[in-house]
Amino acid sequence: MSSVTTNRRTPWTTVSGVPVQPLYTVEDLGNFFPDQELGLPGHFPFTRGIHESMYRGRLWTMRQFAGFGRPVDTNERFHFLLRQGQTGLSTAFDLPTLMGLDSDDPRSVGEVGRLGVAVDTIDDMLALFDGIDLGQVSVSMTINAPAIVIMAFYVAAARQRGVAWNELRGTIQNDILKEFHAQNEFVFPPEPSVRLVVDLIEFCTQQVTQWNTVSISGYHIREAGSTAAQELAFTLADGRHYVEQCLARGMDIDTFAPRLSFFFNSHNDLFEEVAKYRAARSLWAELMRDEYKAKAEASWKLRFHAQTAGCSLQAVQPEVNLMRVAYQALAAVLGGCQSLHTNSMDETLALPSEHAATLSLRTQQVLAHETGVTNTSDPLGGSYFVEHFTQQMKQEARRCFHDIAGQGGMIAAIENGYFRRKIADSAYVYQRSIDVGEKLIVGVNAFQQSGDKIMPVMPFDESTESAQVESLRQVKRDRSWDDVSRSLDEIRRAAAAGQNVFSALLEAADRRVTVQECMDALADSLGRFRPSAGW
Amino acid sequence: MSSVTTNRRTPWTTVSGVPVQPLYTVEDLGNFFPDQELGLPGHFPFTRGIHESMYRGRLWTMRQFAGFGRPVDTNERFHFLLRQGQTGLSTAFDLPTLMGLDSDDPRSVGEVGRLGVAVDTIDDMLALFDGIDLGQVSVSMTINAPAIVIMAFYVAAARQRGVAWNELRGTIQNDILKEFHAQNEFVFPPEPSVRLVVDLIEFCTQQVTQWNTVSISGYHIREAGSTAAQELAFTLADGRHYVEQCLARGMDIDTFAPRLSFFFNSHNDLFEEVAKYRAARSLWAELMRDEYKAKAEASWKLRFHAQTAGCSLQAVQPEVNLMRVAYQALAAVLGGCQSLHTNSMDETLALPSEHAATLSLRTQQVLAHETGVTNTSDPLGGSYFVEHFTQQMKQEARRCFHDIAGQGGMIAAIENGYFRRKIADSAYVYQRSIDVGEKLIVGVNAFQQSGDKIMPVMPFDESTESAQVESLRQVKRDRSWDDVSRSLDEIRRAAAAGQNVFSALLEAADRRVTVQECMDALADSLGRFRPSAGW
Repeated sequence: MSSVTTNRRTPWTTVSGVPVQPLYTVEDLGNFFPDQELGLPGHFPFTRGIHESMYRGRLWTMRQFAGFGRPVDTNERFHFLLRQGQTGLSTAFDLPTLMGLDSDDPRSVGEVGRLGVAVDTIDDMLALFDGIDLGQVSVSMTINAPAIVIMAFYVAAARQRGVAWNELRGTIQNDILKEFHAQNEFVFPPEPSVRLVVDLIEFCTQQVTQWNTVSISGYHIREAGSTAAQELAFTLADGRHYVEQCLARGMDIDTFAPRLSFFFNSHNDLFEEVAKYRAARSLWAELMRDEYKAKAEASWKLRFHAQTAGCSLQAVQPEVNLMRVAYQALAAVLGGCQSLHTNSMDETLALPSEHAATLSLRTQQVLAHETGVTNTSDPLGGSYFVEHFTQQMKQEARRCFHDIAGQGGMIAAIENGYFRRKIADSAYVYQRSIDVGEKLIVGVNAFQQSGDKIMPVMPFDESTESAQVESLRQVKRDRSWDDVSRSLDEIRRAAAAGQNVFSALLEAADRRVTVQECMDALADSLGRFRPSAGW
Repeated sequence: MSSVTTNRRTPWTTVSGVPVQPLYTVEDLGNFFPDQELGLPGHFPFTRGIHESMYRGRLWTMRQFAGFGRPVDTNERFHFLLRQGQTGLSTAFDLPTLMGLDSDDPRSVGEVGRLGVAVDTIDDMLALFDGIDLGQVSVSMTINAPAIVIMAFYVAAARQRGVAWNELRGTIQNDILKEFHAQNEFVFPPEPSVRLVVDLIEFCTQQVTQWNTVSISGYHIREAGSTAAQELAFTLADGRHYVEQCLARGMDIDTFAPRLSFFFNSHNDLFEEVAKYRAARSLWAELMRDEYKAKAEASWKLRFHAQTAGCSLQAVQPEVNLMRVAYQALAAVLGGCQSLHTNSMDETLALPSEHAATLSLRTQQVLAHETGVTNTSDPLGGSYFVEHFTQQMKQEARRCFHDIAGQGGMIAAIENGYFRRKIADSAYVYQRSIDVGEKLIVGVNAFQQSGDKIMPVMPFDESTESAQVESLRQVKRDRSWDDVSRSLDEIRRAAAAGQNVFSALLEAADRRVTVQECMDALADSLGRFRPSAGW
């Protein structure tokens, strides 16, 4: 293999295929005036970070995504992670829950609790956070089509526990647009889907005031194969669409914009990723101040969670993933993330074992406490390469915005398949660069080794499904069907009348209505999305 | 533990205790003019790297330090590492060899082949590199007091194999000064020790022209507890002393300076390390051109090997070392190293297992091929923080040079214990910062966990010593004692006459004289160093 490292036939491009020059000097900054365009951390346009003191004031939240089995299983993992020094929680739901199905639905068979935790009713929500003070710990929940239902369950659970809504801190993903672009976990058509996003934003803006009402996500766009610039541009375009719909609802921008948050991928290419995060902050600040006329500084600040790139991890030589994740985590931190999930080395093989999950958290702790990178804000600021690439990334994103407008706007571009085509094209180019060996992936198309050690993985408990179904049946036996029925009627009525459905869902939660019952009631008014063939 | 990450009571200093500002901006560059002081890669003062194209032209050499047991054992590991994609070899000798003792000396008992490979005669040298083309593979040998003896064995072995001396590429450490500062593996007093270093440089400059004649090493100075700036300053001061002694020998600087090489530590603090490497290149170029009047560009270029910091690795939660090493390796690469050893996660427990050694090589491969950091030269160039810190590091090193001169120069400073005091003081300050919890080390004073998994380590083969001793006895029986005796007389004569002893050692090698016999003969003329109590 030694020829590989001396005969360098790589095309000198980033992971996204963007050409990189052999050298960047002060000349590459061109007409870039640091005082005006770069600014200082904590000040417009926030290229160098949203806080003046960045990580000296407060470290990013170490928030490992976790969820499997029944609520009691995930609750146990949550307590374990908190004991290991994790500073926030992040919930993975199982596929049925993500699609708005209950555990006893025939379509759920084989998937209950497999890739995330099963949540059917408020009883499950209470079990999931048992022994955790929701007024203290910041909680993230990754869910989209049923986001408003799950959020209603969470808020109702908090109320039952006596936690005031304005003490709740966390995020719900609630970003349906990227499901149409990349992830495919949608239920309703695009327009009513966005309406539910806005319903949630509107309710929380008024009543759950510390909550991040949406986590506008590039992560899945990137995982589906987009470039870094597309991830950036499509995500901010989604953000703009939500902003515009909230404004159309009559909301004042400075009431809701400060609680919008973002979620980006942290892929392999260290400097490309840093440039992406810096460009994202600066672009969003410009959009919010200059285009949407936000007046509050808090509205200008793009806050983001980062997760290392699941798609970059390999099943062969899985411990090598530890190093990939370490570099990806560094990119997120040098890019100024507010919270971070580091993937576990065994995620391509199974759900993370306790051991693997601990090591991925340890990666963040080493980064935070041993590498010195938190000593100063934006340590890469001024780098000819990074500043040039940040500017270039902004230009590329603006070009994408123009393209989307040319498609007739967000909904039209979704419906005509624009996003899916663009992402598929990029994924093809990337895969080809690996297939022809222009880009090397350790263990995959270079440095393979025979006799890979088998890594012990966490077994799936096959009794999960029947236990969860039984517990759901018990709830169904115990609750009042009249109450349920009245709740469902109220959801249908509010949805049909174009009213905010949140209050109706909140009441349904207390009456132990299930996720699927709520979703079906909503679908009666909103319809279901049936993409055309070839979409 | 969550309070640790939100209540930040760190003193905001580097690993070396240097204060870091909350922010660096263009103002911190002061009177720094990039065109003059920074320059371009491949051009004076080489701050941005010694090659124009840096890693686009050629990657750093992935050179994992390895050695244990008998020569045949290490030979097998060498072949294994080459199959895994390693691009150079690096030899660890056992403690007796490092101290100039044979395997059958009573003082060697229990140490033969334990922490490195045992080499007693040229037969061992031939076995060590069996099946490896010495005209093709670059070989590093870490040895100091007996460096000239081992180098004579190597050169003689190459001749026996029919490899021309001017085809040999590699390095021998041959840096005795840092042994007096930090590592304690000296045999002769400082002045005659340096004379042997110069003998080796002189011989190889004439006859082994591609060989790096000395690897001037800050690594062990840092491992002993120095700061990054002390590592830099003491190492370059050692280099200056060798240069001055070669000049005193009557050599032309441009004949030998291009084959001096350096060896630095890569510790935890990412940006401090990068600044150190950049400062080292620029300082050395200035010294060589302006102070020593070298005219050849090759004499100005500081080339260096880096090794991740062994002292930073922890025995608890050993897999966390994988991430430490990943970040340290990144620092070396962002700093422009020419070759790199990444430590194995299990090195605090035992000699590296094959599995651990492979993973540490994989770290370099991920860095080289997946992170994109090799796409452009000196990607951090221009960063306000990094440029400021680079300048600051240079100033601090110049202050140290001044201090050493104030002690009466290198030899006087060694003899009066200056270096040892300075290093001990720094080590104390660092240790205290950990003891009081100002600096956190994952698993050590934070994020401990009970029930640490036991990592399987490589067992030591207890039959090594007797087998090696037996094979040495066989050589002693087979060889001509008259030849040996004549060789030893010639070594004594050359040493006493102040002549270069290399040719006499070369002949001794061919006559199967042992390492210890050569060293004892040298000591008859050069004496042995007996440090005074409390030194």
